[in-house]
Amino acid sequence: MTEASRIGSAALRGKIMSAEEAAVLIEAGTTIGMSGFTGSGYPKAVPLALARRIEAEQAAGNPFRVKVWTGASTGPELDGALARANGIELRLPYNSDPIARDRINKGEMEYLDMHLSQVAPVAWQGFLGPLDTAVIEISGIRPDGSLVPSSSIGNNKTWLDRASQVILEVNAWQSTALEGMHDIYYGTALPPNRVPIPLVKPDDRIGEQTFRCDPAKIVAIVETHAPDRNAPFDEPDDAARAIAGHLLEFFRHEVAKARLPASLLPLQSGVGNVANAVLSSLAQGPFHDMTAYTEVIQDGMVELLDSGRLRVASATAFSLSPGAAASINARMASFRDKMILRPQEISNHPELIRRLGCLAMNGLIEADIYGNVNSTQLMGSRIMNGIGGSGDFARNAFISIFMMPSTKKGGKISGIVPYASHVDHITQDVQVIVTEQGLADLRGLSPKQRAKVIIENCAHPTYRPALTDYFKRAQRGSYGQQSPTLLDEALSWHQRFVETGSML
Amino acid sequence: MTEASRIGSAALRGKIMSAEEAAVLIEAGTTIGMSGFTGSGYPKAVPLALARRIEAEQAAGNPFRVKVWTGASTGPELDGALARANGIELRLPYNSDPIARDRINKGEMEYLDMHLSQVAPVAWQGFLGPLDTAVIEISGIRPDGSLVPSSSIGNNKTWLDRASQVILEVNAWQSTALEGMHDIYYGTALPPNRVPIPLVKPDDRIGEQTFRCDPAKIVAIVETHAPDRNAPFDEPDDAARAIAGHLLEFFRHEVAKARLPASLLPLQSGVGNVANAVLSSLAQGPFHDMTAYTEVIQDGMVELLDSGRLRVASATAFSLSPGAAASINARMASFRDKMILRPQEISNHPELIRRLGCLAMNGLIEADIYGNVNSTQLMGSRIMNGIGGSGDFARNAFISIFMMPSTKKGGKISGIVPYASHVDHITQDVQVIVTEQGLADLRGLSPKQRAKVIIENCAHPTYRPALTDYFKRAQRGSYGQQSPTLLDEALSWHQRFVETGSML
Repeated sequence: MTEASRIGSAALRGKIMSAEEAAVLIEAGTTIGMSGFTGSGYPKAVPLALARRIEAEQAAGNPFRVKVWTGASTGPELDGALARANGIELRLPYNSDPIARDRINKGEMEYLDMHLSQVAPVAWQGFLGPLDTAVIEISGIRPDGSLVPSSSIGNNKTWLDRASQVILEVNAWQSTALEGMHDIYYGTALPPNRVPIPLVKPDDRIGEQTFRCDPAKIVAIVETHAPDRNAPFDEPDDAARAIAGHLLEFFRHEVAKARLPASLLPLQSGVGNVANAVLSSLAQGPFHDMTAYTEVIQDGMVELLDSGRLRVASATAFSLSPGAAASINARMASFRDKMILRPQEISNHPELIRRLGCLAMNGLIEADIYGNVNSTQLMGSRIMNGIGGSGDFARNAFISIFMMPSTKKGGKISGIVPYASHVDHITQDVQVIVTEQGLADLRGLSPKQRAKVIIENCAHPTYRPALTDYFKRAQRGSYGQQSPTLLDEALSWHQRFVETGSML
Repeated sequence: MTEASRIGSAALRGKIMSAEEAAVLIEAGTTIGMSGFTGSGYPKAVPLALARRIEAEQAAGNPFRVKVWTGASTGPELDGALARANGIELRLPYNSDPIARDRINKGEMEYLDMHLSQVAPVAWQGFLGPLDTAVIEISGIRPDGSLVPSSSIGNNKTWLDRASQVILEVNAWQSTALEGMHDIYYGTALPPNRVPIPLVKPDDRIGEQTFRCDPAKIVAIVETHAPDRNAPFDEPDDAARAIAGHLLEFFRHEVAKARLPASLLPLQSGVGNVANAVLSSLAQGPFHDMTAYTEVIQDGMVELLDSGRLRVASATAFSLSPGAAASINARMASFRDKMILRPQEISNHPELIRRLGCLAMNGLIEADIYGNVNSTQLMGSRIMNGIGGSGDFARNAFISIFMMPSTKKGGKISGIVPYASHVDHITQDVQVIVTEQGLADLRGLSPKQRAKVIIENCAHPTYRPALTDYFKRAQRGSYGQQSPTLLDEALSWHQRFVETGSML
C-alpha cells in the first residue's frame, strides 16, 4: 500500500463515490455497524452525510432513525451528528458523546450498555436482528481486495462478516505504516464449535494482517482525509500523581513479596489523567520488560513504550492526543513490532485476560464501603459513558484495581459512599481501590473488614467521620451482618446531592 | 481398589489413627483446607473431633478458632459442628449451614463469599496466607499412594498441593466404583505460565483419575463409614412446574429459530426444586443427545441421564437425596462413562464456560425491574448462602437464565422489586428471567425496555400495579433516564418488610 494508491484493487476503484451518494444507500429503520473505538478509526464522512439526510427527511415529515452498533465510543462526526439529528433509535455498546449522552438521559434514545468482549459473539447469536450495513473506516485496500485496517479494530471483522452491504471510508490521514500492525483472528465460532484461542503472550500474533471482505457486498467507497477525534491530553494533577504513587508502591511491595514477577504482569489501563499518571510513573519506575494487554494505546502507553520499559502493547485501538497522534503517525513504522491491534473480542476476551493474568486498572464513579463499584450511572440513573471493557478485565484480572480521586465537584461528591447507587462491579471483582488518600488492599477480606480499610485508607477526611458513623450504626441496626446496611439511609447521600447539589 | 483394602499402600496404613488423635494435629489459629462441595465428599469425623477439642479448650479458657476453606457447602458434621463450637474465625468460599449462617449474620464470624472458580487460583496467589492443614475425604488409596477421590472434587487438588500437612479420611460408605470417574487436571499454573485448557467438549478427559500427594505430608489417615449429607429431594410444586414449562417453551422457540442446536448446548443447573423441575421436564421433552457442564449432579440430572436424553454430565460434585444416593451407589459402575467429576476451577472455569457456550440456569433471591439480580443477601445485608458458581456461569454463558417463584413467604415478599437491595449479577449478565408468571427474554433490550417486560411477564399480579406505578413515576422524577430510579423510594419495599414482615 503506498500513499499514491490507497485503493489497490482496480475493480473496487469503480465503487468510489461521495459520502452523500453513499448515505443514500442506507434505509430508514435499518441497523448499521460502524467502525470506531475510543475516538479512533470511526467513519468521518458517511455518518455526517447520513445525519444531513435524516434531518432533511424529518423536515419533510418522513420519520428516519437507525440503530447504530460500533466498537466503542466514536467522534462528533458520528455519534454527535446523528444524535443531534435525533437519528439514533438504539445505540450499542458504548458511548461517550455528550449529545448522545444527553438524549439517553432525557429518555429520547435507547442505549444498550454492553461488555465489550461480548458484542461480536452476541451479534453472531442472531437475536439482535440482521445487520444491514457496515460503515467501516480503513487505511487502504490491497490489490487482492483485502482491507488494511485503520487506527482501531473494534468489531470491524464481525460487521464486515455479518452486514448485507458494506460502505468503506478510505482515510488518507491514517499512516500507511499501519499496514502489518494488525492481527485479525479468524478462528472464532459459535458453540459447539469453539476451540481454544492460541494466544499465550501479549505479543503473540494469531491472525491475519487484513480484513477479508466479499467484494460483491461493497456498495460504496468514500475517500476521506480527516484526523481521529484525538481528545486533548489530560495533564495529571496532584491527586492523579498521588494515586500513581500509591499504586507503584503496591506493585513494588507485591514484587518484593514474590507475588508478582519483577516485570509485573500484562497491564490493562483505562484512559484519562489518572491512567496517564500511572503510566508516566511506570515509565520512571523500577520495572522493566513490561507488557500491556489492554483495550487502548493512549499517550501514557506511548510514553511507556518510548521509555523502553514496556516491550509491547496489545490493544484494539489508539486513543491519543493530537500531539501524540502526529508523533505516532510520523514514527508508525518503528512501532510495528511493539504494537498489535486486535479485534475487541480478542483484546477483551475473558479466556485470554485470565490466562495472561492482567493487572487491570480502571476508573470509577463511586465505590461503597464494601467495595461495590459504580462505573456508569451518576446517582444511580444518569449514564456517564458505559461499562466498556471494565467487566471483562475486572472479573478475570490477576489483580483488579479501581482508581479515582476521593472527591469530585470540588468536594461536593464523595467517591466513597455508604451504598453504591448502581453496581457494575461486585465486591468479588474489586480487589484494590486507590484514591489520593491511599490504597485499600481488599484481597482476602470479608465485607466488614473491607469497610474498615476502605473508609480509613481511601475516603476523604471530610467524609470519613460520616462514613465511620454510618458503618457503626449499620452494625447495630442492620437486618443482617454480612454487609451491614441501613435501608432507609443507604441512598440518602445521593438523594441529598440531587436535592442540594452536594452530598455534604 | 477393592472393598477389602481401601488403603492399598502398606506404608500409609501405618498412619491410621482415630479422629480424635488426628484432630490434635491441628493447631489453634491455623488455616484448614477441607474437602466438600454441596454436601458431598466432606470429611465427617475429624471436623467433629476438632469441634469437641475446641469446645474443651475454650471451656479451659484457651481461645481456639481456625480459618476454614472448602470447595463449597459441606454438612452438619463440619460447618454445623465447628460453627456451634464458635470455632470458625473466617470461612470461605461458600456456606449453606444454618448455624454458620446465623453466626455470620450476627457478626460473630467473618465470611468471604467468593466466585468458586477463583478459589484455587487465589490460594496459589499467596496473599491469603499459608494453608496449614488439608483434611480431605477420599474413597481409597492406590498401592502407589495416589488418592482415589470421593463424591466431590472441589478444591482438593489445590489443598493437597498447598497444605503443609495432610489428614485423610477414607470413607468406606463411598462406592469403590467411583474409581475412574474423576478427571484431575494438573495443567494449571500462575501467570505468566498459563496455557490454554485443552477441553472442547463436556466429555473430554484432560487429566488424571487420582490425586497426587507427597506421602511425607500425610500425618494421619482416619477410616470412616458415613453417608454424605444427602439433602431430601424437593418435590417440584406448581410454581416450579410452571417455570419449567416456560423455559422449555423458550428452548423450543430458540431451536426453531436456529439460535440453539437441536440438542441444545451444555446445561448448567443449580439445585433445588425449580432446578429439579426443569431437569425433569427436559427428561420428557423434545431434546436428545444433550450434555451438561455444571457444578453438581443432582437428582434431576440423574433422572435426565436415566432418560437417555442426557449423554454426559460433567460436574465437580454430587448433590443427591438419600434415595438417589443409594441408587447411584448401587449402579456407579454403569455411570462411569456418563459422569465426570473435575476440580471446581475446571468445572467453573470462565474459559471453558464461554467456549462450550453453557445454558446457565440459576436461582435468585430477587431481581429488580431492570434485571439486576440479588443471589445472596436478604434485604441487602443478611447472607443466605453465597454467590457460588453463579457468577462464573452467568457472565460467560451462551444464555444466562435466572428462575424463581414471583413471590415468597406466602406472598409477603415480591421476587421483582423496584431496586435490588444487593447486586450479584448486573443487567449485562442476566439475559432471561423466569417466574411461574412467565418468561422475560431481555436480550438486546435497553434497561427501560427490560423493565416493561420484567414487570409484565414475571411480576406477581399482586405487585404488578405498584411496580408499574413506580416505573412510571421514576420516568418523571429520576436524575437520569438510563435506568430511572427514585432514590428516596428505591429501597422502601425492603424497609417495609423489615419493619412489618411484608412488602405489601
